[in-house]
Amino acid sequence: MIKQLCIFGVGLIGGSLAKALKEKHYCEHIIGCSRNEAHLQKAIELGVIDDYCLEPKKAVQNADVILLAVPMGAMKTLLATIKPDLPPHTIITDAGSTKASIVNDVHDVFGEDFDRFVPGHPIAGREKSGVDAAISDLYHDRRVILTPLPHTDEQAVQRIQAMWQATGAIVEQLSVDAHDQILAATSHLPHFLAFNLVHTLAHLPENDDIFRYAAGGFKDFTRIASSDPVMWRDIGLHNKEALLTMINHYQTTLAQLATRLEKDDSEGLLQTFSDAKQARDTFLAKFNSR
Amino acid sequence: MIKQLCIFGVGLIGGSLAKALKEKHYCEHIIGCSRNEAHLQKAIELGVIDDYCLEPKKAVQNADVILLAVPMGAMKTLLATIKPDLPPHTIITDAGSTKASIVNDVHDVFGEDFDRFVPGHPIAGREKSGVDAAISDLYHDRRVILTPLPHTDEQAVQRIQAMWQATGAIVEQLSVDAHDQILAATSHLPHFLAFNLVHTLAHLPENDDIFRYAAGGFKDFTRIASSDPVMWRDIGLHNKEALLTMINHYQTTLAQLATRLEKDDSEGLLQTFSDAKQARDTFLAKFNSR
Repeated sequence: MIKQLCIFGVGLIGGSLAKALKEKHYCEHIIGCSRNEAHLQKAIELGVIDDYCLEPKKAVQNADVILLAVPMGAMKTLLATIKPDLPPHTIITDAGSTKASIVNDVHDVFGEDFDRFVPGHPIAGREKSGVDAAISDLYHDRRVILTPLPHTDEQAVQRIQAMWQATGAIVEQLSVDAHDQILAATSHLPHFLAFNLVHTLAHLPENDDIFRYAAGGFKDFTRIASSDPVMWRDIGLHNKEALLTMINHYQTTLAQLATRLEKDDSEGLLQTFSDAKQARDTFLAKFNSR
Repeated sequence: MIKQLCIFGVGLIGGSLAKALKEKHYCEHIIGCSRNEAHLQKAIELGVIDDYCLEPKKAVQNADVILLAVPMGAMKTLLATIKPDLPPHTIITDAGSTKASIVNDVHDVFGEDFDRFVPGHPIAGREKSGVDAAISDLYHDRRVILTPLPHTDEQAVQRIQAMWQATGAIVEQLSVDAHDQILAATSHLPHFLAFNLVHTLAHLPENDDIFRYAAGGFKDFTRIASSDPVMWRDIGLHNKEALLTMINHYQTTLAQLATRLEKDDSEGLLQTFSDAKQARDTFLAKFNSR
């Protein structure tokens, strides 16, 4: 249970956590904080938060747990702003899609021995964003990865784990580096590939016809290209090294596939596609049984 | 109306056409032909076809319309087999995903002035295949592209158009080249990208973890990597030039995107993603209103 939860950034991610915890009566009081008063008023109307505050310093004064769900580029400034008023018992966690970047921000602001920050990443989302899109079951049966450091307070980790478990999420732990590499592969790379495909086709001379004859496969493949451009720019920039490594690797394998096609390597193509189908079918079976 | 329709290859595509036409009582008699008697018996049990025949020569003897829905690599041999017994009024059409290749096959077998072949491509599918997966509304509100040549008999084109319209499809015409280029962009390239992504990730050392933390975006993005590997190998090989051109172009734009990321070109990334999102949202709105 949490007495007072303070959420910075009451959009899809922060709002869905608040909704889920309210349904479970897990918090006595949820306070939202952002720069946009209209959004916060809407969050109150929607019953997502109990109260709001426009000043970060005030918002944290009675907080037991703080969730940072703001764009990654805004994290460091926010941390510096709340530092002077942070109560000594308050735990900070975040919901960012990359972890090395926020860990560095916390180190820069609070020092390397700060032990009440629990880096977190709920692996859930929708292509819609904003508090309107928040739903209480967004995290149900979804994974939340925590990446505590060796010196992170164990009780703080337990509290954040319990909070996410209350939403129905499956909480697991990874190292910061493993998290950023895995997410570069399964999430950041596919988003870059999808954005790049749609961008490329939209700039072909015959783009009207191209989209006219696109079918259901194209629709699913490009769903993630309807995601928030600002968020994905930030994710890319904050996980640059791991993502560039994955893009380079993908370029290499795509060039190999093109060579097989060019050389009419029927066996090689079939092997690649059969391997891929098998891996994807196995993934799907596990995904659906979650 | 068609008196006798002969379908070579009673799988998802041929079977769904048969089911749709039966529902509309559009054919007096639908006969299926393939090498696999068990599949044909199943098609009869499922009410997809009225009768079957294992010998192509016999199957075409009373056919008014023939649909070729066999793998593209099998088309030419099949055409040569049925040629001696083809009645003089019979119209041939196909359902292949590439068009230059089958047009060449028909020219090679029947000569360049053969005017009763209407190249066709229903843009519909499921990741499941086989006659079990056949459904009567597969083509409802989907596009079917016909690519008749200048010398193709106009009445033959009209009959094939009317047949597809009876299934609820929207029939349009394109040139052979335009079809193959457009499909390379919207269908063949995405399939190659998706197969390549799953294949690449499955061969990383940490592949267990990678698929473990993959989420809904990954599931949708890779849905088409669960498609039939043999079919997609054939499509690739039969639309090689157009597809290689698209892969090369994609490699170039992906390298540009990687450079933007490497150089922290925040504005460039945002512009690319915003353009893509806008194009994809526009496509989706049109797709959903079809």
